Amino acid sequence: MESITVYDIAREANVSVATVSRVLNDTAPVRTSTRQKIMAIIEKHKFQPNALARSLVNKKTGMIGVLFPDSSNMFFPEVFGGAERAAQKLGYTLFLCNTFSDFSRESEYLTLLRERQVEGLIFMGGRINSRHCPDALVQEVLDIQKKIPVVLINGSLPGHPCHRVKTNEYLGTELIMQHLIDHGHRHIGFLGGSGETTTTFEKLQAFRRMMHANRFPVRKDWVRLGDFSIDCGYELMSQTLEHRNPPTAVMCINDYVAIGAMKAAISRGLRIPEEMAIAGFDDTQLSSAMNPELTTVSQHSEQLGRQAMAILHKLIQKEKVKKLTVLVPKLIVRQST
Amino acid sequence: MESITVYDIAREANVSVATVSRVLNDTAPVRTSTRQKIMAIIEKHKFQPNALARSLVNKKTGMIGVLFPDSSNMFFPEVFGGAERAAQKLGYTLFLCNTFSDFSRESEYLTLLRERQVEGLIFMGGRINSRHCPDALVQEVLDIQKKIPVVLINGSLPGHPCHRVKTNEYLGTELIMQHLIDHGHRHIGFLGGSGETTTTFEKLQAFRRMMHANRFPVRKDWVRLGDFSIDCGYELMSQTLEHRNPPTAVMCINDYVAIGAMKAAISRGLRIPEEMAIAGFDDTQLSSAMNPELTTVSQHSEQLGRQAMAILHKLIQKEKVKKLTVLVPKLIVRQST
Repeated sequence: MESITVYDIAREANVSVATVSRVLNDTAPVRTSTRQKIMAIIEKHKFQPNALARSLVNKKTGMIGVLFPDSSNMFFPEVFGGAERAAQKLGYTLFLCNTFSDFSRESEYLTLLRERQVEGLIFMGGRINSRHCPDALVQEVLDIQKKIPVVLINGSLPGHPCHRVKTNEYLGTELIMQHLIDHGHRHIGFLGGSGETTTTFEKLQAFRRMMHANRFPVRKDWVRLGDFSIDCGYELMSQTLEHRNPPTAVMCINDYVAIGAMKAAISRGLRIPEEMAIAGFDDTQLSSAMNPELTTVSQHSEQLGRQAMAILHKLIQKEKVKKLTVLVPKLIVRQST
Repeated sequence: MESITVYDIAREANVSVATVSRVLNDTAPVRTSTRQKIMAIIEKHKFQPNALARSLVNKKTGMIGVLFPDSSNMFFPEVFGGAERAAQKLGYTLFLCNTFSDFSRESEYLTLLRERQVEGLIFMGGRINSRHCPDALVQEVLDIQKKIPVVLINGSLPGHPCHRVKTNEYLGTELIMQHLIDHGHRHIGFLGGSGETTTTFEKLQAFRRMMHANRFPVRKDWVRLGDFSIDCGYELMSQTLEHRNPPTAVMCINDYVAIGAMKAAISRGLRIPEEMAIAGFDDTQLSSAMNPELTTVSQHSEQLGRQAMAILHKLIQKEKVKKLTVLVPKLIVRQST
């Protein structure tokens, strides 16, 4: 953008930049003749009162950075939507950074956001869900946290206190498992997710605990990890069905894996749920659009975003906020189980 | 953020802000002793070289604003993903603004982006797809365009030359219609979209032209508009099926409406495609995940974003670029037709 800057105006008016800032921001009295001279130059050049210049003086930008792992999984846009609506009401602008959960991408954005002097940071995905996050990457977040408030959604930096909002995914898994067990299933599989992520680890722990508590066998061939995509769900269910004794039900790491798994089961002629019960996780808008409709667990995605933004706002206002906010998940029973 | 600013450093070093800027940006020689004094202060306060301050001096921010209508329709995140990847290679940061296609939201963001001195703007949805966009709203975009390059994706400001990237949606509609006609359909319906949007209008025109060219009847009850959602598709197909003579095939405004329409047809016991052929539009990742898989048209969403970013970059570099870039859509035949 080639519009003039406060520096140009200061030069032309033969005053200091600070004086121009005072006029622009009305932060301190300026002699009327000086003010008029500056206003005339501003008018002449159609100078756009500049948020950048203002933020240098006010030390406020109204900008919030949002690190966001994956826009191809509707769960994250749904969380973001909640944060957006809250931000708008509170007068903030969200600066959305798509990291694809890539650690070096995250580092780049963290540097950029720091340079752009955002007032706060909402962090989702990537390193805060990593089971083996290198210390240097944890330190980057802690360094930022010393300067501006940070809120983590569904993640943590183990050993370091952070402000966090999360849904109880352990409980969510228990709800699904109990539902499957109540429907007479004892041969239950677990599909999708990555062993490197805390989310997968947490769900898998709850899965195993429920199986053991009911004295059901956990077969290695019934627990298949991979990633979080539809393709992965298709692939893992296909592999599972090649097994001589496939399970009668599977819980999937999320709705996307469940959608892929349904597709694989149907393409092999299985009836859902009669011959294979399938459950997802997240209750994205897709789950009710599928045929059959998908049983899943709501994480209250919109509320996660809304709460994170509300907490961040309080922290920016220097209010005291408890470190951890936990939402209670909700089982949504549909046709697939 | 309460870190110190260039103003504080200038005061402490007893030099002008311009001198601090020269040191920070290495734009002009500064006496060694002065430089050392400034560097010592920077070091002492752990001053973060400040993108805001730099941008005031360089008049460059590296920031691009992206106006984005609806993150709940995967088509838009897919376009954005393409723009993101191109932006990263070119060294830009995208500032994503979710407008929900709300005109006043767009205006707010346009003002904000202008204030934040983005170097360029990518515009999708909302007013650039409106058939009756008030002059004042058009003027807002034209005003910005005088200052920074703007690229519109799949939209226009009628009567005003703009840089645009679009997929030929008229041709896309013809491709789907020809495919349905080739499969023997002559009773074809059109579901979804809003009469206020240019996209809907363009597709509807192509639909009518194909029907008339083949001397097929266009029944009022077979053409039902609404919006772009799954729920709308469900509702419109349900209404259509209450008609005594329903069509044998429908083309839907997008994949989401098609998914809803499939659900409604299946829930009434119709077999797809034998008793009802259904086609979508956009080839979002969902279309191949459905059961049956959805026939659709690819708009090359990723490429739309990539091209828009490439054109914007050229414009920022003051290179000459032709006003209109048109991508050729591709019919993707799957199981639903």
